[in-house]
Amino acid sequence: MKFKQITIIGVGLIGGSIGFAAKRKGLVSRIIGVTAHKNTLRKAMKRKAIDAGTLEVKESVSGSDMVVLATPVNRVLSTLKAITPYLKEGCIVTDVASVKEAIVRDSERILGKEAFFVGVHPMAGSEQRGIDKASGDLFKRSPCIVTKTKYTDKKALRLVLSFWKALGSKVYLLSPAEHDKRISNISHLPHVVASALSLSAKGKSMDFASTGFGDTTRIAASDPDLWISILTANRKNVVKDIEDYLDGLIDIRNSILQNKDRKLKNILIQAKKKRDRFSLR
Amino acid sequence: MKFKQITIIGVGLIGGSIGFAAKRKGLVSRIIGVTAHKNTLRKAMKRKAIDAGTLEVKESVSGSDMVVLATPVNRVLSTLKAITPYLKEGCIVTDVASVKEAIVRDSERILGKEAFFVGVHPMAGSEQRGIDKASGDLFKRSPCIVTKTKYTDKKALRLVLSFWKALGSKVYLLSPAEHDKRISNISHLPHVVASALSLSAKGKSMDFASTGFGDTTRIAASDPDLWISILTANRKNVVKDIEDYLDGLIDIRNSILQNKDRKLKNILIQAKKKRDRFSLR
Repeated sequence: MKFKQITIIGVGLIGGSIGFAAKRKGLVSRIIGVTAHKNTLRKAMKRKAIDAGTLEVKESVSGSDMVVLATPVNRVLSTLKAITPYLKEGCIVTDVASVKEAIVRDSERILGKEAFFVGVHPMAGSEQRGIDKASGDLFKRSPCIVTKTKYTDKKALRLVLSFWKALGSKVYLLSPAEHDKRISNISHLPHVVASALSLSAKGKSMDFASTGFGDTTRIAASDPDLWISILTANRKNVVKDIEDYLDGLIDIRNSILQNKDRKLKNILIQAKKKRDRFSLR
Repeated sequence: MKFKQITIIGVGLIGGSIGFAAKRKGLVSRIIGVTAHKNTLRKAMKRKAIDAGTLEVKESVSGSDMVVLATPVNRVLSTLKAITPYLKEGCIVTDVASVKEAIVRDSERILGKEAFFVGVHPMAGSEQRGIDKASGDLFKRSPCIVTKTKYTDKKALRLVLSFWKALGSKVYLLSPAEHDKRISNISHLPHVVASALSLSAKGKSMDFASTGFGDTTRIAASDPDLWISILTANRKNVVKDIEDYLDGLIDIRNSILQNKDRKLKNILIQAKKKRDRFSLR
């Protein structure tokens, strides 16, 4: 598999890293990068994450075999609408958004039959952002979910699967709905939990906060605008997961309050087992 | 300040690191280490965290100017009872337990006027344990709370404060009750939150768990027995903090459920601000 030309819209941490990795692995002859910020474009060119750059979304996609929408979640659909008239026939359009059901459904509707949408979510990155943090190793061994619906074009799907495998990801194929459910559980819920914990810290206690507090709240430092989009786009699953989590927490509260040390111990043992299994993966 | 002889009871991560650091800084001529495990003793001797070692708690303290109880929280009081008859008159007894009110009160009662108790909580360490992880740098720039009550001997307090400053800690002086309140907020609550989050992860989602989940749940891998002792010894504060946390989480749940995006955004912004302040300390 080798693409002649792809366009990456949004050359930040994820978009930039896709550029680096795709060039290093020789998956693409020519990469065009698009961003609203001249400075980012200059850096991406200088670091050779892209071969050419433009600030103009529309002209950037003409002639490309694949377009990667690597914008923040809340800009995927508006960007897609803007580029649709300029897409080459049979172009593959893909994204990197961390919510999938609404985006995939609307994207398929917007594109119609002229071009093929395949929704993707690479689970890499951190609370950091921007081209400066981009790296060709970002996706190495990290999970990447590729989604499939009854409208998904088979050839486009095959190419997108190969592309992400070649970038180094561990690729999984799920329906958009299944994706949103799973990711709510192990990404969106942790974000809510960490944000609530950061908020609960009292000023007078902060002198004594150490690595435990630091790790548990790290993702609360992420971009609020980005997370508003994610949490609201996955509203149903996130609310359900928060409610299950509340039940678990109330269980712990009651065990402590009612001196049920045996029950509390059992809860802590189970929690440790699950976390240890995560470490050993 | 130089102690002629100190005894460290429990030569694990904390006890071993105290040994390393005290020897490196020349704070003590002779350090006697005590542990129930021959293997630990051999390692501690070999790595020169202690000058002499014994498996026998009682004889280890005779002649020492200071005894450091570096056992797990739930063994501090029983150990103190066992050594009390053998303490040199005027001996300083100190600990490293992460709960203080109950331990300091009972320790003062057990020791009477023959020896002086000063409760200490160095906020260093991790979910890892044991002499293998001990290091002379463990306390460098990490917070350490020294507690003071109306019974605290002034000279003993001064010596303990100097000792911990010399080990590299940022030393704070608080009442035991104030300590327990603060530490519940930024250490015990995060532990409960992380354990509940680890428990809430569903098996099918775990393939997709990444650094976000990993960091937010890291401390759930700690020793359950240790944490049972901590959470139950600080029951009142921990329950209060869990309840405040539940209120905050319900607030987020409602904002998501009721499409109150502006409110949700404000919550996430405040959470990020607090976390950023922690990073910048």
